[in-house]
Amino acid sequence: MVLAKTTRINFLFDFYQSLLTDKQRLYMQLYYLEDLSLGEIAGEYGVSRQAVYDNVRRTEAMLEDYEMKLNLFSKFQKRLEIVDRLEQLITETDEQSTMAKKLLIELKDHE
Amino acid sequence: MVLAKTTRINFLFDFYQSLLTDKQRLYMQLYYLEDLSLGEIAGEYGVSRQAVYDNVRRTEAMLEDYEMKLNLFSKFQKRLEIVDRLEQLITETDEQSTMAKKLLIELKDHE
Repeated sequence: MVLAKTTRINFLFDFYQSLLTDKQRLYMQLYYLEDLSLGEIAGEYGVSRQAVYDNVRRTEAMLEDYEMKLNLFSKFQKRLEIVDRLEQLITETDEQSTMAKKLLIELKDHE
Repeated sequence: MVLAKTTRINFLFDFYQSLLTDKQRLYMQLYYLEDLSLGEIAGEYGVSRQAVYDNVRRTEAMLEDYEMKLNLFSKFQKRLEIVDRLEQLITETDEQSTMAKKLLIELKDHE
């Protein structure tokens, strides 16, 4: 559950980070990507742990708000699903093509 | 050139309208989609022509800014291009498949 939420936030961050302020981006990177604690980030930048916490929580809410409005992550997931199905189909076609070539050779062998 | 710009703004509006305020969305719809003049919109909402003009220009700048940050339109164009090429390939495969079936029938006819 915690991992799922972290994964989701990481994806949302990927999609919408260009819409965040530099500070929001920085805190999110340190907290989610580099796995620093709120206290460590606070110490590093001379602010209170609460200030970092509030900033990160507000940023998460903003990311969810952007996703509600633009659906980039959910659309990406759906497209990825379709591309996977197409890839599977193409692989099958490929295998059929290989098998067909073998059968043609067999056919010639029976002349 | 004018048409090209209008087309681009229409696309950007499609992609980013959820990030605009209600008023921005309204003016853009009336100006770009329903093709009302700035004066007509101003008259309709009891504001100055200049106010509508400024709002529309600011919104256009915002749309371009979002596109610079998120590239939804340019990515969409690139994906569409690739999908078109895939469709063409699939159509060719389809034609080859039809031709192969005909050749198989011809082959049987020569038994």
